[in-house]
Amino acid sequence: MVSTARVVVIGGGFGGLNAAKGLKRGPAEVMVIDRTNHHLFQPLLYQVAAAVLAPGDIAVPIREILAKQRNATTIMAEVVAIEKEAKQVVLANGDRVSYDYLVVAPGARHAYFGHDEWEACAPGIKTLEDALRIRERLLISFEKAERCDSISEAEKYLNFVIIGGGPTGVEIAGAIAEIAQLTMIQNFRRINPERTKVYLVEGCEEILPPYPKRQGKYAREALEELGVEVLTNTMVTHIDRTGVTFKGGKLIPSRNIIWAAGNQASPLLKTLGIELDRAGRVKVQPDLTIAGYPEIFVIGDGAYLEDKKGKPLPGIAPTAIQQGKYVAKVIRKKIAPDKRKPFRYFDKGMMATIGQNKAVAVLGKFGLNGYLAWLAWCLIHIAYLIGFRNRILVLINWCFEYFTGSRGSRLIDRGLSDDH
Amino acid sequence: MVSTARVVVIGGGFGGLNAAKGLKRGPAEVMVIDRTNHHLFQPLLYQVAAAVLAPGDIAVPIREILAKQRNATTIMAEVVAIEKEAKQVVLANGDRVSYDYLVVAPGARHAYFGHDEWEACAPGIKTLEDALRIRERLLISFEKAERCDSISEAEKYLNFVIIGGGPTGVEIAGAIAEIAQLTMIQNFRRINPERTKVYLVEGCEEILPPYPKRQGKYAREALEELGVEVLTNTMVTHIDRTGVTFKGGKLIPSRNIIWAAGNQASPLLKTLGIELDRAGRVKVQPDLTIAGYPEIFVIGDGAYLEDKKGKPLPGIAPTAIQQGKYVAKVIRKKIAPDKRKPFRYFDKGMMATIGQNKAVAVLGKFGLNGYLAWLAWCLIHIAYLIGFRNRILVLINWCFEYFTGSRGSRLIDRGLSDDH
Repeated sequence: MVSTARVVVIGGGFGGLNAAKGLKRGPAEVMVIDRTNHHLFQPLLYQVAAAVLAPGDIAVPIREILAKQRNATTIMAEVVAIEKEAKQVVLANGDRVSYDYLVVAPGARHAYFGHDEWEACAPGIKTLEDALRIRERLLISFEKAERCDSISEAEKYLNFVIIGGGPTGVEIAGAIAEIAQLTMIQNFRRINPERTKVYLVEGCEEILPPYPKRQGKYAREALEELGVEVLTNTMVTHIDRTGVTFKGGKLIPSRNIIWAAGNQASPLLKTLGIELDRAGRVKVQPDLTIAGYPEIFVIGDGAYLEDKKGKPLPGIAPTAIQQGKYVAKVIRKKIAPDKRKPFRYFDKGMMATIGQNKAVAVLGKFGLNGYLAWLAWCLIHIAYLIGFRNRILVLINWCFEYFTGSRGSRLIDRGLSDDH
Repeated sequence: MVSTARVVVIGGGFGGLNAAKGLKRGPAEVMVIDRTNHHLFQPLLYQVAAAVLAPGDIAVPIREILAKQRNATTIMAEVVAIEKEAKQVVLANGDRVSYDYLVVAPGARHAYFGHDEWEACAPGIKTLEDALRIRERLLISFEKAERCDSISEAEKYLNFVIIGGGPTGVEIAGAIAEIAQLTMIQNFRRINPERTKVYLVEGCEEILPPYPKRQGKYAREALEELGVEVLTNTMVTHIDRTGVTFKGGKLIPSRNIIWAAGNQASPLLKTLGIELDRAGRVKVQPDLTIAGYPEIFVIGDGAYLEDKKGKPLPGIAPTAIQQGKYVAKVIRKKIAPDKRKPFRYFDKGMMATIGQNKAVAVLGKFGLNGYLAWLAWCLIHIAYLIGFRNRILVLINWCFEYFTGSRGSRLIDRGLSDDH
């Protein structure tokens, strides 16, 4: 056994970063490989899409975070394959990197349930690029509507359809409803931004399916107060440039469709050559490794694990953070496979905002709705942001929006794209 | 004569915006047409390219600035032609807009002196998109250099060549030299960011040609202290993906070439059907109109005018601002062509920073170098920024950089572009 373990971490998200940081004082050489140069605070990404925050407010270069950790190297590269027998990962340019331990934390993308062609018209929000694309469409839509000669022509630009009534869908629906009412008001002459119509579409019978029904109902009422039309029990059958078609044939004309309806784990996991679940995730062992390979850990959105009651762990930041820390401890202490205690998820609860002043939160059996939940949401998200500078900037942007209604990041920086 | 004049303003830069704002209380219907949705504070654009500031810090939606001016409408569109006989402007989609007065303030792009093919390898800094492209290349270069196997291979990524020793060239050279020494230090493991080599190339015998020689010399020494190699009397003969070739045959291998060497006024001016100067500018009448058309004003970087001593007015923000205000007054008061007093430029001086703590400033015959000039530069730029929020954000970002060396906008948001 080598005294200094070579640890390769794929992905600089919550899971990967916490695994790397947890190895700071261990006898390890850590290499973090990410396709981008930044760690992204995904819980606030929808606010970049809604022009509240700037990309830099919620993203920090990974190598800046790890600057003082002398045993960590950061590489910006794409991993295309994992060769578990050779104990190597293969990069897009053909380079190979050997490891003693491998932490696989590549995250997830959207799943379109066999309709990948929908993605062009209905992008999801996972990366900064996604969020900037949605922001651009959103802002250009108002610009285009202002130039339309008739109201019916403007309609397709002022209809927003969000597909998926989970926490992401609820948060983005609230944020878009508010941009029209708080931010855009007075800015236009021909159109009335209040004509904006936001639809939130959910297949189940209530929104926020992982939350207690009571909270789903509260969220629905809060959204309706903001003018959002919540369509539950509603199935999407087709999406194209005209709009969204539902089961039964109804069409909502829209150029602004956002997908928040399902995840698919990173395709990199397929190269592990093991069985994956329907969402492309690895069913990990209790120590988060894959069967027969105690040196390969899979964590975060790419891992499937159930808690003691048989309930799957939620795909949220606390899960990934705790898993990253657990893996770092196992590697740091070189715990033999048969001596590892199973990973235990400590439930810190879930929360989602609905516009300003309102949120739903749930912790075990305890639920909280309204202003207090919203305040808690704000504080927790500021506290978990990495970097003092980012905390200040987010706080300032929030205050400005709260007190003046103006959003700081209403930038269309790529010019008028005519394919919109 | 109509009682309410229809005023069309092309361009929402310093000139156009001040013309529009100056008409707030006049009997006018103002329409501002811009290709983008934002007014850009161009004097700080190089700091976006250098990852100090975020795009949103120095850009504000034009319709937000004019929100409370009820007689102003903002349209995001591209003007492709001016038909001065029909008194109409033609938009890219074929729409026509009629005017009683026209204010043409479309700005300038770079001039490559007949070598437009150089632009792909040597972009300039005029728009947010330009700045983001340069920032991406800059940051990716460090990432790529970190992955190179040999120092000679890494060289082309760590060589930066800035062509043009005017104020823009000097400012960007200083900012790039500092990114390596202040910001990137400690962030990399294999490369030493201090190996970064910045070249500033100027055809004249001293940099900062519009400034007194003494100040050019000061700027050169200050840049050399930062490790910048200043090459004066140096002519570029060729630019491609390998690097920059100079007269005499010397080649500097570089993937990071920035063009700051010359301007060409907007091609829109050609559609006026009048004679333009070598830089594509309109030689305007003393009242900033074009001969024979007292209702068409050309202002800002697209206008050529000399002061009383026969010196051309500088292409800087104060010129455009003063011209915009002058035009608004003429239109507001409906001053007849023969009663208009000639436009008088009030010289507020020029200034340029050289990294932190140093700047050169000149006001008439009075020159100021060093720390005080730098402090004045900071204060003036903060004061002229539009929007309280933007002032706060720029101030915070500057303070963070000043005291910690960290730059807030080190984001590569479009993924690894392999054509770099």
